[in-house]
Amino acid sequence: MSVVARPETLPLGGAPTFPSRMWWVAARSAEVGSDLLARRIADRPMVLYRTNEGAVVAIDDMCPHRWLPLSKGRREGDQVRCGYHGLLFNHDGSCAEVPSQPEVSTRVAVRTYAVIERAPWVWVWTGDGDDADPTEIPAYPWLTNPDWRMDEAYLPMAANYLRGHENVLDLSHFDYLHPGGLATQEWTRVRPSLSIEDGVLVEVRDLRSAPAAPNAAAMGVEPGSLVDRRNESRVPTPALHIATTTLRSPAGDGHEYHGAVLHAFTPETERTSHYFFAAARDWRVDDSEFDERFWQMALFTFNQDKDALEAVEQVALTHPGPLREFSVRSDKSGLRLRRLVKELIADEARGQAKSED
Amino acid sequence: MSVVARPETLPLGGAPTFPSRMWWVAARSAEVGSDLLARRIADRPMVLYRTNEGAVVAIDDMCPHRWLPLSKGRREGDQVRCGYHGLLFNHDGSCAEVPSQPEVSTRVAVRTYAVIERAPWVWVWTGDGDDADPTEIPAYPWLTNPDWRMDEAYLPMAANYLRGHENVLDLSHFDYLHPGGLATQEWTRVRPSLSIEDGVLVEVRDLRSAPAAPNAAAMGVEPGSLVDRRNESRVPTPALHIATTTLRSPAGDGHEYHGAVLHAFTPETERTSHYFFAAARDWRVDDSEFDERFWQMALFTFNQDKDALEAVEQVALTHPGPLREFSVRSDKSGLRLRRLVKELIADEARGQAKSED
Amino acid sequence: MSVVARPETLPLGGAPTFPSRMWWVAARSAEVGSDLLARRIADRPMVLYRTNEGAVVAIDDMCPHRWLPLSKGRREGDQVRCGYHGLLFNHDGSCAEVPSQPEVSTRVAVRTYAVIERAPWVWVWTGDGDDADPTEIPAYPWLTNPDWRMDEAYLPMAANYLRGHENVLDLSHFDYLHPGGLATQEWTRVRPSLSIEDGVLVEVRDLRSAPAAPNAAAMGVEPGSLVDRRNESRVPTPALHIATTTLRSPAGDGHEYHGAVLHAFTPETERTSHYFFAAARDWRVDDSEFDERFWQMALFTFNQDKDALEAVEQVALTHPGPLREFSVRSDKSGLRLRRLVKELIADEARGQAKSED
Repeated sequence: MSVVARPETLPLGGAPTFPSRMWWVAARSAEVGSDLLARRIADRPMVLYRTNEGAVVAIDDMCPHRWLPLSKGRREGDQVRCGYHGLLFNHDGSCAEVPSQPEVSTRVAVRTYAVIERAPWVWVWTGDGDDADPTEIPAYPWLTNPDWRMDEAYLPMAANYLRGHENVLDLSHFDYLHPGGLATQEWTRVRPSLSIEDGVLVEVRDLRSAPAAPNAAAMGVEPGSLVDRRNESRVPTPALHIATTTLRSPAGDGHEYHGAVLHAFTPETERTSHYFFAAARDWRVDDSEFDERFWQMALFTFNQDKDALEAVEQVALTHPGPLREFSVRSDKSGLRLRRLVKELIADEARGQAKSED
Repeated sequence: MSVVARPETLPLGGAPTFPSRMWWVAARSAEVGSDLLARRIADRPMVLYRTNEGAVVAIDDMCPHRWLPLSKGRREGDQVRCGYHGLLFNHDGSCAEVPSQPEVSTRVAVRTYAVIERAPWVWVWTGDGDDADPTEIPAYPWLTNPDWRMDEAYLPMAANYLRGHENVLDLSHFDYLHPGGLATQEWTRVRPSLSIEDGVLVEVRDLRSAPAAPNAAAMGVEPGSLVDRRNESRVPTPALHIATTTLRSPAGDGHEYHGAVLHAFTPETERTSHYFFAAARDWRVDDSEFDERFWQMALFTFNQDKDALEAVEQVALTHPGPLREFSVRSDKSGLRLRRLVKELIADEARGQAKSED
Repeated sequence: MSVVARPETLPLGGAPTFPSRMWWVAARSAEVGSDLLARRIADRPMVLYRTNEGAVVAIDDMCPHRWLPLSKGRREGDQVRCGYHGLLFNHDGSCAEVPSQPEVSTRVAVRTYAVIERAPWVWVWTGDGDDADPTEIPAYPWLTNPDWRMDEAYLPMAANYLRGHENVLDLSHFDYLHPGGLATQEWTRVRPSLSIEDGVLVEVRDLRSAPAAPNAAAMGVEPGSLVDRRNESRVPTPALHIATTTLRSPAGDGHEYHGAVLHAFTPETERTSHYFFAAARDWRVDDSEFDERFWQMALFTFNQDKDALEAVEQVALTHPGPLREFSVRSDKSGLRLRRLVKELIADEARGQAKSED
């Protein structure tokens, strides 16, 4: 069946759905080494690698001469040699050598992208290079706290990145998409408070004296026993969703358990995305047998999300006739995020229009 | 190679090629049970299932909230629960529950389709629900006659459904696409009588004293010996082709052998279809060893049809430049059917235009 | 990711990139026998076969009746019988029989293509049949010289055919795409002389006292020792690139080694091509163990070319935003060829416009 992508089926009612002036997670740190890693970020094909000094470099993944992806070439020190006719590029994007001629034109340069590495991730800036401000990358101290246990992974996802955001802003999906460990009706019943603080969407769920979910057993908390739980979700930029949790069992020793789950959704194209996620906790940090089980369950859960979002994207692509969404109460935060993203994109468009005056 | 579907390569010179106000075979009865069956019928994604009382239900295969196919959800009694955020739908399409909010709007309903089960098939009506008239489903008593032997099967087919109809209206293909069992030159030589009776296309082939085909040996009739054979094809609606056969061997005991082959062609999209077929006979009804051989041969034959029609569809999709058909005498019935279908579609369009006045 | 082919990413800045009035290599002689071979040449689906007398025939691969590819039918003597309703075609394209009717219209003919077999290849003419002039097929005596050793093969290639031409006109790719046997910096450093002789692009590389490449060891020439080498490339038509080489080792016995490599690039579509290649030499002609090694290395090398060109085509198809090429000194011949081909196509268009006056 031949399929035409219809812009109106995107979450914002049309493309683009992502701003360009943005830091995105481009890779897990562990993915970037001396080999050349090809990755499309916000519709820009890039090649990423680590210089001999350990810095990560991101440049256009295309030789400007005859278009072979540079990721099919090879490293020479900190430079990249095209695998077709050998044009050599410095890691600042300038051309160091055109083998078939003595001179090198400055016009042969490839674009570079500002890169900041913040464990466990590599961030790239897809806006104008001059505007790249590392302070715009959100902080996530939990992932590097030596007293916490952290795991992280990556899934490619054939769905628009905003569907990922909307998924984790509406936790009423826990009961239905992830029946089992995460499920309690509380996630569906609670009405989160929603606020915008300095442009950051903040959603808080305060569950007091609520039945513990099955997976609380891992903390030594009886499932079904009453616990106080506070979940805070922050979306500091369209690139990241930060969820932190505090759980206290009043019936137990009153100990507080803390956890953080981070979801980095990076658009690859308008219809596909890179899903990076990390989970950290301050309990059972040295129990590797438990950690193995915990992480397997997390991967199983994230794959359920991926399956559902990809199925939704397929409906968006192939459903005949007009498509409308019917929104319900639990969509409040997701719809608010859409508006924030739309405003960011509109601001950016206005900024471009202005700078072209 | 990128391919653009060209409407002019469809059998009617453009889409649509099927009416909406129509009963179509949507599934074999045996396919529909308590599990959720996803199937696209006349370009409408549906999910089919059987209620606890055994009735078959067909509803839109998309949650109106955030578009997950309902076929990825689960049954709860006779209701279907969406697998994403748990919206619950009654089998009449109304919403019974939105978990994240106390109230349910009547606007959240999904469309249901009228369903009639007539063994061995499940029929759905894709027109307005109010117009669904079960008496418009053609009768086919041979398939349920307890004195006859019946087999049936299903093939998905990557070709427009009308190509299926045209295939079985032009039996001159027997000799060439199915050399072997079915082949005698008679199928090619005979000029069928063609008539339209109350909108039903009827094609009769009367072969008197014609050499028996190789597969007549199964009836104890010597291949090549002279037999009288009468084939009648009826296309009561664009959904069904009914072919009945009577064979008598004057040289033998004068016994008449009867058979019926039914072809239900259901558009999935404009370029793909569902092919349901059934064969029944009143001879050797208790010979299961023979039946096994008979049905294997039938499946082999129907797969030859599928292969040819899919190859034709690929030509229609990929052939460069303009495409024209050169029609010959044996296309008379097929071309007549196209006209009937075109009129049905035009009538329907006029009806809609009128009702919008 | 849905992808739209953008004409401006083709080597000529848009389609078409190939003339129609042209002889193309359609098949290896060894591929064409009594079976029906389906092949798309310059966007024309053809079926090729060899008559009982051994002549190769090429006709449209589509029955004009109901469009089944004739390649899915069967031979009857020198005729082809459609596998659907049995229309029978003579090898001159005329219809010999329509089984379901007594008469045959002359309008049912299929197009035939002029065919010339020149070992080891079968050539077809895609222009008007009347204009087919076999003398326009370039000569390549090396491939049939009984004193030389010849090997040839075929690779389908998902890239525009001109990318193939440009690849073998810019030998600076040897060092980078084929490090190892072929590599010496000489191929990159030498500035070939370029001329157009009667519309034929001629490129000559004269390497005097240049270090022998590693693969010269096969001739008993010490790699790195100084040799005289002359390479001549001729592109007599857009269908063929002929490269001949003479190598002499002054330090040795002064013997001259000769070789020829022929590259036939045939467009299948604008984005895919058939790559036929042949290599012949006048040294070690009876050493089959060496020949086996030599040919494995050649196949390895040609597959490197194919991989690179297919990667370039994918960039052309999927790179977002505008694409520009930055040409360097070694592109001189390739750019000149583009101009020649563009002129051929423009001449052809003018000729057609004129003949329509």
